[in-house]
Amino acid sequence: MQNREHDSLESLKKVTRSFYPKDTVIVIPGAEDHAVGGGTLGIIAGPCAVENEDQIIAIANTVKSAGASFLRGGAFKLRTSPYSFQGMGGEGIKLLARAKKETGLSLVSEITEIKQLEYFDEIDIVQVGARNMQNFSLLKELGKNKKAVLLKRGQASTVTELLMAAEYIMNEGNENIILCERGVRTFETFSRSTLDIAAVPWLKQNTHLPVIVDPSHATGDAALVPAAAKAAVAAGADGLMIEVHNDPVHALCDGEQSLTPASFSDLMITLKKYTELEGKRL
Amino acid sequence: MQNREHDSLESLKKVTRSFYPKDTVIVIPGAEDHAVGGGTLGIIAGPCAVENEDQIIAIANTVKSAGASFLRGGAFKLRTSPYSFQGMGGEGIKLLARAKKETGLSLVSEITEIKQLEYFDEIDIVQVGARNMQNFSLLKELGKNKKAVLLKRGQASTVTELLMAAEYIMNEGNENIILCERGVRTFETFSRSTLDIAAVPWLKQNTHLPVIVDPSHATGDAALVPAAAKAAVAAGADGLMIEVHNDPVHALCDGEQSLTPASFSDLMITLKKYTELEGKRL
Amino acid sequence: MQNREHDSLESLKKVTRSFYPKDTVIVIPGAEDHAVGGGTLGIIAGPCAVENEDQIIAIANTVKSAGASFLRGGAFKLRTSPYSFQGMGGEGIKLLARAKKETGLSLVSEITEIKQLEYFDEIDIVQVGARNMQNFSLLKELGKNKKAVLLKRGQASTVTELLMAAEYIMNEGNENIILCERGVRTFETFSRSTLDIAAVPWLKQNTHLPVIVDPSHATGDAALVPAAAKAAVAAGADGLMIEVHNDPVHALCDGEQSLTPASFSDLMITLKKYTELEGKRL
Amino acid sequence: MQNREHDSLESLKKVTRSFYPKDTVIVIPGAEDHAVGGGTLGIIAGPCAVENEDQIIAIANTVKSAGASFLRGGAFKLRTSPYSFQGMGGEGIKLLARAKKETGLSLVSEITEIKQLEYFDEIDIVQVGARNMQNFSLLKELGKNKKAVLLKRGQASTVTELLMAAEYIMNEGNENIILCERGVRTFETFSRSTLDIAAVPWLKQNTHLPVIVDPSHATGDAALVPAAAKAAVAAGADGLMIEVHNDPVHALCDGEQSLTPASFSDLMITLKKYTELEGKRL
Repeated sequence: MQNREHDSLESLKKVTRSFYPKDTVIVIPGAEDHAVGGGTLGIIAGPCAVENEDQIIAIANTVKSAGASFLRGGAFKLRTSPYSFQGMGGEGIKLLARAKKETGLSLVSEITEIKQLEYFDEIDIVQVGARNMQNFSLLKELGKNKKAVLLKRGQASTVTELLMAAEYIMNEGNENIILCERGVRTFETFSRSTLDIAAVPWLKQNTHLPVIVDPSHATGDAALVPAAAKAAVAAGADGLMIEVHNDPVHALCDGEQSLTPASFSDLMITLKKYTELEGKRL
Repeated sequence: MQNREHDSLESLKKVTRSFYPKDTVIVIPGAEDHAVGGGTLGIIAGPCAVENEDQIIAIANTVKSAGASFLRGGAFKLRTSPYSFQGMGGEGIKLLARAKKETGLSLVSEITEIKQLEYFDEIDIVQVGARNMQNFSLLKELGKNKKAVLLKRGQASTVTELLMAAEYIMNEGNENIILCERGVRTFETFSRSTLDIAAVPWLKQNTHLPVIVDPSHATGDAALVPAAAKAAVAAGADGLMIEVHNDPVHALCDGEQSLTPASFSDLMITLKKYTELEGKRL
Repeated sequence: MQNREHDSLESLKKVTRSFYPKDTVIVIPGAEDHAVGGGTLGIIAGPCAVENEDQIIAIANTVKSAGASFLRGGAFKLRTSPYSFQGMGGEGIKLLARAKKETGLSLVSEITEIKQLEYFDEIDIVQVGARNMQNFSLLKELGKNKKAVLLKRGQASTVTELLMAAEYIMNEGNENIILCERGVRTFETFSRSTLDIAAVPWLKQNTHLPVIVDPSHATGDAALVPAAAKAAVAAGADGLMIEVHNDPVHALCDGEQSLTPASFSDLMITLKKYTELEGKRL
Repeated sequence: MQNREHDSLESLKKVTRSFYPKDTVIVIPGAEDHAVGGGTLGIIAGPCAVENEDQIIAIANTVKSAGASFLRGGAFKLRTSPYSFQGMGGEGIKLLARAKKETGLSLVSEITEIKQLEYFDEIDIVQVGARNMQNFSLLKELGKNKKAVLLKRGQASTVTELLMAAEYIMNEGNENIILCERGVRTFETFSRSTLDIAAVPWLKQNTHLPVIVDPSHATGDAALVPAAAKAAVAAGADGLMIEVHNDPVHALCDGEQSLTPASFSDLMITLKKYTELEGKRL
């Protein structure tokens, strides 16, 4: 059969270790201690969605004091239902920028359409969500940019397909890509997704790009997040993306999987030891 | 927990049978015998991708004489790898228009970005692929349009999520939506996806929108397409989308799942009997 | 790597079409019009579990008049929880034998341990449930017997593994095997399992053994059973196994997926037409 | 609906923390330092199958010096194909007993039929494989025994179903049960199964039984085993079951996922640190 879809690891080029044998490290310009990879465990924490100024500033201060380098917060949300909260949009981004100014944290926020990029000047890492992992138009446009991209694995995507999606970005010239394992969809229902922990060492062996884990979306349950986070570090992840909310019970989205400030602080103390055992630093 | 994501059937509004108890029928303006639903089994056939004028005209004539009402052909392709054939773009759409002029077939083609809509004047039904089922920006824009939308189920999406995606379109004012079951991703490997045949009666019982089946992508194997197509009709589908290629071995994509003109003609003869048994017409 | 597990179709021997190019037909000795395969659509119907004499006799008469050839009924049940109804055991088998005597129906019942075989004299087809598909000890013992075996596909088993399980039986000398597709486990929840309809033509192309479908367990929903049953016939199945109960609401197991006598009779009238269209007889 | 199958956590009784709030610890009579749970990380290591005396003695000495307490080795094998190596049977058990005598290691071996129990006198922990997790006859018989049971999760079984299977054993009087997460079946193919790491904390929160992880079967790839093993300890597992072979390339089964003696020794050194970080001992 001629011209079949390339779907094997062999058809990959730029994201592989044979193309670039060293580890790609994502460093934020102007905040060089904020990094993902190369021995630094990048901690990205914050709420599912930016809800208002008080909320985002309070959480930013909280995650900063616990030791995070990056604040996450959704402004443009992808929701399964059109009747769910869709995010604050550009206003949400402005509030993130204010939190950055106040805390010095670097910022991660999700883009859902390329035209939103105009709002992303203050955002340090542009997140592509699981549902958009194969939105190739968006990937190509982000590839023409130099801003770092955090690419989440699709819920039904193989790790090879994740690498191919990264290849779309890198093929356009942008090498600043972080891969994020966030669970795959299976028959199991106790957790929101099934965290594919073995994807971490597999990816580390096959690509030079940094690999982080999102234990919050993977498990969907705050009670399971700490164990999943520790496991991710032990499996070799270069970072974690953790949902933290000052008031999970009243969160506008994903409250059930958000850590409280106190439990996040406790987790960070534990994670520090695991990070050191891996020969890395927070 | 307040404000959690609406993910149950109860949160749906406009796509449900309780909102609109009759069957929505998609009829092509100016070609009223080209319909999907309401007792007409809409047959959409053609190649995965438009490759050149000779190819698309030859296939159009073939599927027309076999009894199809709609010609499908991809111009803007979504491919897992950036190194796969990405489609002819606007030129491909022009060739489809030429085939329409010559045969009178109505047209179905996939859109991957809203800005491509300017090319779609001659396209009668705009297809949203499985990977874009939750590209909500695209869905909203198509909802503001009146052109019929063929919405394919995502590979890891539940039928409830498919209905919610349709709700995004309908909520913006466009009721001309066809749902397409095309298989879900499972552990099984003999077929490309696992055709969820029971989704057809479930959807028919829960939504007024027409439901078609794509046995080509579901099975990924031309040898399994006829049985899957017959099963779809027997399960109550309102239409079928079938890949046909004049030269499958040299097709630029999906050759292995494309029927030859001869096998498509044979299948249509068989399908006619099953359609009549269901009290429908081709 | 030496001596790795054989897991490809190539390692199969006796169950393949290359070993035996004709279709294996299961005919019940002494009731030769009760058959599965070879142009006869074998209809197996009855309750999940034998509950008492009145129940099983009433249902037997019902399914007999509707046109079924086989009565099913569980006496030794496999239940996920030890606190669920575990079946009537040997007493249940006796009641089945009484129903056979009264109606002339042939019998299908599930075995869960080889030592139960002593009770199975009057049972014409011994069923191996999905959970036991890879209980190789049981398969081998049944292979030493001549009684027909109905082998259900495991919920997480590939069709190749189903054929390998059949190979265990056939390798011991018993060729009287019926394969049963009953749905696989996926992320989807509207149905109990996901009916893998394309497995039917795939199996028919790759094995000489007859292939039936169990739309009741596959869908787990009586409202979906008729469409799934029709689809199975259209896909080329050699038979159907359908749960029927005279009082589904009070059934001791699987009531929600059991057809009433009336809906089963209606379905049989419809199925007759589909069967004829396939060039087969009931 | 009356009398439906109990499939929720609420229907569980004896395996839950509300029944027994402390941690069940499995201690081997006569070798009290060989334990699983209660602060001891039980390490079970050895080959997939016992192949001959030299092999099993050599591996036993190896895993003993690296710090394992338990030797595993299959004598009665469950293989997908009847043409694969089926194990040495009773002879294999005898060789395990010889290895026990020489090294003092406690023994773990899989049972596939209850009648094999007569061979298991020297076996300290009887393993029930993933394919037999719902072989309820076997579970009930093992429940009447006092020997510890290592119950592996089925490839398509939920954690709730795993607990229900354990309930079958415990309901007969045997509380000496170890649960084993060994990966579930998903669409992903880079690993043999998908290790469900979040099942570890979920189980630890919901049952008093010890929970171990089998990173060898979960990943199916020796290159992924160390990271998966570390992750399991970090996630709170009470033990690990790891395949080790003195000559993986020539192993009669599962060679590709077996660690060499050297890599196992290295891993044990690393695991010791993670175990201590968890406040446990090897």
